Order: sequence, then C-alpha cells, then structure tokens
Amino acid sequence: MPPQDLKHKKLQPPSEQLLAHLTKLVGKNNAITDPQLQKPYLHEWRDRYIGRTPILLRPDTTAQVSKILKAANEACVAVVPQSGNTGLVGGQIPSEDGTQILLNISRLNRFRSIAPNKQHMTVEAGATLTEVQQKAQSLDRLFPLAMASQGSCQIGGNIATNAGGLNVLAYGSTRNLVSGLEVVLADGRIWNGLKSLKKDNTGYDLRDLFIGSEGTLGIITAAVLKLYARPKDTATAFLALDDLNAIASLFEYVSLNARSNLTAFEFMPAIAMEFVTAHIQAARLPLSSRHPWYVLMEISEFASQTNAQLRLEEQVNFAMKQGDVKDGVIASSLKQSSEIWRLRETISEAQKPEGGSIKHDISVPIESIPNFINTASRIVEQICPGARPVPFGHFGDGNIHYNISQPPGMDKTDFLALWETMSEAIHELVTKMDGSISAEHGIGRMKKDSLIRHKSPVELQTMRAIKEALDPKGILNPGKVL
Amino acid sequence: MPPQDLKHKKLQPPSEQLLAHLTKLVGKNNAITDPQLQKPYLHEWRDRYIGRTPILLRPDTTAQVSKILKAANEACVAVVPQSGNTGLVGGQIPSEDGTQILLNISRLNRFRSIAPNKQHMTVEAGATLTEVQQKAQSLDRLFPLAMASQGSCQIGGNIATNAGGLNVLAYGSTRNLVSGLEVVLADGRIWNGLKSLKKDNTGYDLRDLFIGSEGTLGIITAAVLKLYARPKDTATAFLALDDLNAIASLFEYVSLNARSNLTAFEFMPAIAMEFVTAHIQAARLPLSSRHPWYVLMEISEFASQTNAQLRLEEQVNFAMKQGDVKDGVIASSLKQSSEIWRLRETISEAQKPEGGSIKHDISVPIESIPNFINTASRIVEQICPGARPVPFGHFGDGNIHYNISQPPGMDKTDFLALWETMSEAIHELVTKMDGSISAEHGIGRMKKDSLIRHKSPVELQTMRAIKEALDPKGILNPGKVL
Repeated sequence: MPPQDLKHKKLQPPSEQLLAHLTKLVGKNNAITDPQLQKPYLHEWRDRYIGRTPILLRPDTTAQVSKILKAANEACVAVVPQSGNTGLVGGQIPSEDGTQILLNISRLNRFRSIAPNKQHMTVEAGATLTEVQQKAQSLDRLFPLAMASQGSCQIGGNIATNAGGLNVLAYGSTRNLVSGLEVVLADGRIWNGLKSLKKDNTGYDLRDLFIGSEGTLGIITAAVLKLYARPKDTATAFLALDDLNAIASLFEYVSLNARSNLTAFEFMPAIAMEFVTAHIQAARLPLSSRHPWYVLMEISEFASQTNAQLRLEEQVNFAMKQGDVKDGVIASSLKQSSEIWRLRETISEAQKPEGGSIKHDISVPIESIPNFINTASRIVEQICPGARPVPFGHFGDGNIHYNISQPPGMDKTDFLALWETMSEAIHELVTKMDGSISAEHGIGRMKKDSLIRHKSPVELQTMRAIKEALDPKGILNPGKVL
Repeated sequence: MPPQDLKHKKLQPPSEQLLAHLTKLVGKNNAITDPQLQKPYLHEWRDRYIGRTPILLRPDTTAQVSKILKAANEACVAVVPQSGNTGLVGGQIPSEDGTQILLNISRLNRFRSIAPNKQHMTVEAGATLTEVQQKAQSLDRLFPLAMASQGSCQIGGNIATNAGGLNVLAYGSTRNLVSGLEVVLADGRIWNGLKSLKKDNTGYDLRDLFIGSEGTLGIITAAVLKLYARPKDTATAFLALDDLNAIASLFEYVSLNARSNLTAFEFMPAIAMEFVTAHIQAARLPLSSRHPWYVLMEISEFASQTNAQLRLEEQVNFAMKQGDVKDGVIASSLKQSSEIWRLRETISEAQKPEGGSIKHDISVPIESIPNFINTASRIVEQICPGARPVPFGHFGDGNIHYNISQPPGMDKTDFLALWETMSEAIHELVTKMDGSISAEHGIGRMKKDSLIRHKSPVELQTMRAIKEALDPKGILNPGKVL
C-alpha cells in the first residue's frame, strides 16, 4: 500500500455530449452555464476562493444525483458537491480551471418522514439547518445543531463536514446527531443506510466514514436525524476567574455534576471583553470589577419539576466557596441572558476595529488548555512582538478559537503577511500537544497542505487507500482534504 | 468496483522458517505449538467452533504485533486476532484447517496513562473489562461498559466487536466510550490514533472504521477510553403493564424527561417471569398479581443534592395516573434492587429446564417493537405450533433478545433442527422492518452467510472495497464478517 498521489488521475473536462446529456437529465433550468447566474455559487463568502465551472447542476432527486455521477465517472470528469456554500475552508468551490462540474443539492430538500415517536426524522440533504430546527420544534423536539450560518447552511453540508457549533458540549458534533445516511457513490450506485437503530453490529461503520469526508467519498443525499427533548428551563451565568487553571477546575466540577445538563461552558479573556465593551453598541460587563478571565455557563433542565436557576446557583456557590470563581452574576431574565450571550458572540466582530486578526480553529485535550494558551502566547510574542492573543471559545470541547489581533499601530497588511508563519508555529504546538489543527471547520482546500505536514504518514496513506477504493477515478471533489 | 470474492486470495500455511522467526520474536514461552497448551484458546466457549493453529503467539508489545503482521503479510499467512475468547459469533477462533496463526493479545495489558483531569485513560487491548472498570473506580470515575463476561473479556475485543451490554441506553455502545485507538495494520505499520479530543475534523474517521470491524481491518493494540462521573444515587423500579404499546408510551415519557439519568429500561414477558420464579432459587415476583409485561427501570443521579428514588417515584406516579403502568414497586433497599435485577438477568438460565431454545440478538426501531413482537409470534407459531416466544431485553435500545422456547413435550433435537428455518424467517422480518440481525454480538463466522442475504449488495461491495484497500492480501481474520 504505497502512498498514492491522487493528483495523477487523468480527469477530463466534460465533453459537449456529456454536458448535453446532463442538461437533459436535470432540465435546462437546472443546468446553468451562464457565468452571471453561476456567480453566487462560485464565490466563497469570505472571497478566499473564486472557482469556475462549465455547468452548475441542480438535481432534485437522489436518482438524478445517481445518474449524474454515473455519467461523470464513466467520462472521468470531476464533480464538486455543494450545499449552502457557507463552508469556511473552500471545500464547496470548484477549481479555477473550469473543468469541474458543480453539483448543488439545494433542491433536494424534502422532509421524507417522521418516526411515530418523533425521535427521528428523515430529511433530504438540501434542507437548511433552520428548516430542520423548525421542523423539530413543530414536533416539540430539539435538533441541537446550531451555528451562525444556520439560515443558509444545509444539513447535507453539515453532515459532510461534521459541523460543530454552539451545542457540541452536551450533544456532540453533527456525527452524534445522525443515525443513518443515504449516499450516492462515485460511480452512481446508491447506498441506502437510512436506519434509525441505536444498535447495529453488522459490519463496517460506513456512516461515520462518509460523515466528515467533505464530499470526497460520496454525495450525501438524505439522512435520518436524531431528535431530542426540548429543555423546559435554562439558566445562564457570567463568571469571573483569575486564571486558566481555575477555569479547568470549575469545568471539571460542573461537568461531573451537571453532565448533559451543562449545555454551555464558553471562556474568554479580559482583552476580548475590552474589545466588546469598546466597540459593540450597548455592550457592558455585568460585573463591577475587571478580571483576567470570564466564563459563560449555561444549565438546562428537561423535567418539569426541576429548576435550572436553582441548579446553576448551587454550582456557582460551590465554586465560589472553593475559591475558583471570584465574582459572578446569574441572569435574572431572558433579556439579561441574551445580553450575556451577546458578549460572547460579538468577539470576532469586536476585533475588527482593532486591525488585522490571524485566526485558528484548533482543539487540544481539555486539561492541556492552560499550557497551550500560555505557550502559544510566548510563540506569538516571538513572531510578532506586541501582537495581542484573543483566545476564546468552547472550553468544554477543548476547542479554542485562537485569534490574534495585530499590535496597535502596526500596518494591517504587514501583520497579515505573517499569517502562514504564525499558523505553522501554532499548528506545530497543537500537534505536539496531541491536538487537532481543525476542530470543527474541516480541511477543504485551505488546510490541505497543512494536513500533510501534521498527520502521520500512516494515517494519510490509510485515508488515500480508502479514497482509492471508494472513488478509484478520483472524480469526487478532487483537490480537497487529500 | 465489482464485488471481490475474498476467498480466492492465495493464503499459505506458515513455513518452518516463518514459524522459527515468529518464535524468536516473542520468545519460546509465548509461541505455543503444543496442542494441549493451545486447547483453551481454540475452543469457543459454547462449543460451536473448535479451531486448529500451527502456532499461538502471545506478544506483549505493539512493536511485536507489528513485526508479526509484517512477516505474516509478506508470507501471505492468515492471522486471527484474539483477546478474551468470550465472543458469541466465533470471530476469535481460527479455521479447522490449521493454517492460520492465532495472535492472542492478553499479555498486552498495561495501563499506559491517565489524563490529569481523569476524564480519559490509555489502556492496552489485553486488559480485562473488570480491570478497566476497577481502574476507573480507583479514580472515582465510571467506565460504563458492563456485561456478563466482564471478568474474562478484554477491552481490545470489546472495541473490535463494538460490544453492547447493560449500559448502552445511557452511555451508548463501546464505540461511544472510545476516544482514540492504536492499531497495527495488515502489513505491520502502526497507526497512532491515541487522541483524547472531543473535536477533530481532520480527515476520515478511521477510529470508527476499526471499531466493530472484528479484527478484519487491523489489530487494536491500545485505546484512549472516556471516563464518566460515578452515579451518587440509583433507584430501581419493577413495573407491570398490560401491553407493548403501554411500554412504548412509558419509555417515550421517561426517556424525554430523565434523559441520560434513565440508566436502564429492560422489558420481559409474563412467561419469562414464570420460568424464573419456577426454576431460579428464591426468585419471586415483588407484585401480588400477574400481568402480561414487566419493565425494570433504573434512574441514576449524579449531583449530591438530588434523590434518585424521588425522581423515579415522580415518573412512576405520572405513568400510573396516565394508565400505562398497572402496578409497580420501587426497591427500598440495595437488596431488593438486586433481587429485581436478578429476575431480569436469570431469564436465559431459567429457559434451560424448559428445553431447547432458539436465540436471536436483533434490533428494530423502538417504535416498531410492538409490531415486531406481534408479527414474530405469528411466524413462530406457523413454523412450530406451540413454541413459546420469550422476547426480552433492552427496550430502550430497540434490542430484543428474541428467544424461543420449545413446545412442552417436544423432542429437543427436533426443535433445535428448526434453528435455521426459524432464524431466517425472523431475520427476514427484521430486515423488512429496517432492523439489524446482529444488534450487539457482531457477525464473526456465525452470521456471515446471513449477512450476505440481508445486507444490500452496495453495502457489501463497499465493505469489500475497504477490506481490499486496507488488507490487500486478506491475511486479517479471513472468513469472518465478509
């Protein structure tokens, strides 16, 4: 099993004949060749990537997806699957050479069925995350996946990238929320794995192989999603702490006590709150004095007899007695709770008036967070003296959005020119600490080279062997992940 | 990707030279060729399979496993991995032709490390499940995997088969309890995937591919296990219900309310309790009148301020008001609780004095359980009039141990001769209901032919393609799963 170089596959641009065949398959209105009409599908939303394509296809059934892939595979033509085009690493954009077919699954957006006990529903891949959440709510259930892009991103893309978001602490990543899949394979065969079983030990776990493979092993066309109880009561606290070890100790205590009732444990440094209170309208700290670190903690209750605020108070009081928490406030109204959440959610926005920002989406083992942040600070200072680390994020997931704001007064372009040097140094530290260089955004095109540097050769070889086995001609999303 | 017939691989018996090389590798005492000494390793514990091997190897380091596989792969010699030899489908036993090396990993049993926050520990594959549980307990943590064979089965085998057991309802199968793996691949390369990250979106999910692959894709040598909070309080109820729909309705209510605090929800029919009270010493029903169905329900609490019995009473009172539960008792002492559990745990044993029993380990979507059991009863009656279905098990996992006791007075051998006919009919029904023909025991050798009949060709082809990619010579556990 020597490492295969997938770049040497002889992919072809589509022939006129193939284009005509595909147009007939999906209908003229859904086979778009006009560059003006294609434009919104070819621009990555942060303008990092702008692709070209001879044809944008918008099939609306699994059978159409199957026929497209069969024809493309026979002709050795690349196909890039796309859903909401909100990805952060360029996985959804075709290459610039204009040879790759763009297959957008937005029209494949039906709700196929709901289990009688409302614990599962089967949804096609093009439903937006908001539509999925709303459907769950209409059943008095919760689909817990949630993120900033939820109005546009689609469940197929969420699954293909194993998206993270705001509720991973209690519910896990998208992987944990999916019970079964329907996938069209590279040559057009359809795998029906739409199962809603809790236990099934009959062979290899194909579901988890497709989840997170970013469209390189198959195209997800539908999924059985797990539905959860909606919380009956939620309470939010904003706490001040002196150091990272105190945060770690607080997290250990509450996560063991409250378990899956602990639905958020986010952390942020003093500098983040300075930026937010300086630049975000009407934002103010709910505490009277300044502290080095803050934690946003949320407890949810699911039984009608229990009280979230009471449980939260018990946890906070204990932690204050222990000395971990120095000051804190528990939201006494929904309004105050959403003001607290706003402090956390506007950090990235509040960084903008402070100049350039170099960003990372990394994870390390939870107990290594303090050591990681302290060591990373020293690395940043060595590479760019005066640069201001703003590490914040999902402490309970070990997931740090390690953003670095430029030194005050430095030229923004000069600072951003350090991106690669800085990232490589941070990623090296992450790898040394057994962490991940992409905790929730995936690899796509942006982190492909970085992956090669940070994964072990054995793991890369194994991934390539699987790719060769499932997509021998390499037509599925070439140039991404591997 | 045409379906490959894996049987046509040209596997060889090991040469004298290879045997000498392997003996030198692990040392004479751990390269056992004496059939008497090999015997306990070659007998499946229910006497279904008795294998032969030219050599039993007991390596004690990952490096040794690596060297063994490298040599075996070069020589095209089959290797059967084995841990505690407690599997129920024959996956751990070599073939009868005496050509396959048996690689037992029992000596690879060190506890390598414990995370400072005691949320993870790294353990070698040969540690017994009891040792793992005890180590967790010594850290004031819970490793929730539990099953009858825990004193003998080893964590490597648990992971390779994605074992189920008694605590799947709240904690999931073994898959959910494993954070990272170390695996030796077919050609001896070592994949170090010993990570303890909650979030890692950097490529294909190899971990979940190896978990449950029953030693056909690689040999698991170590794992990072997740550790959980130990419950501070537990309460058990024994409830009587009139029909399966009432059980389904009760389960829906308590699972939404108590969520992961619901740590057991087992069901059993009147006939099972008749067998148990008739044949098991000192067993007696804690209720005064007879009912068609019974449920064992357990609630655990993890915060010191909460009371499990109180929460359980609330749930039971509500269900009695609703009319789902007709009668019930909540254990008032540890002794009474273990007496209730004994009623559930001795069902298989209590079937023995009633003659032959044909057994199935199946799952269906939870909401289909009533329909499955009613339809299956009719099928059983058609195939063998008078045969007595004893369906019991993990209702909350959709996992039914669908056992059938022979008609009273029938010849046991005549009844057991119906095994294949009966199983095929039951498995057909399971497949029609989108269920699984092996919920927690795996495929191994016993269900290999059945798998071919009940899996879709696309899924089998995909599994075979992955097998070919990761083990091109087919040396790993040939004749199992695929």
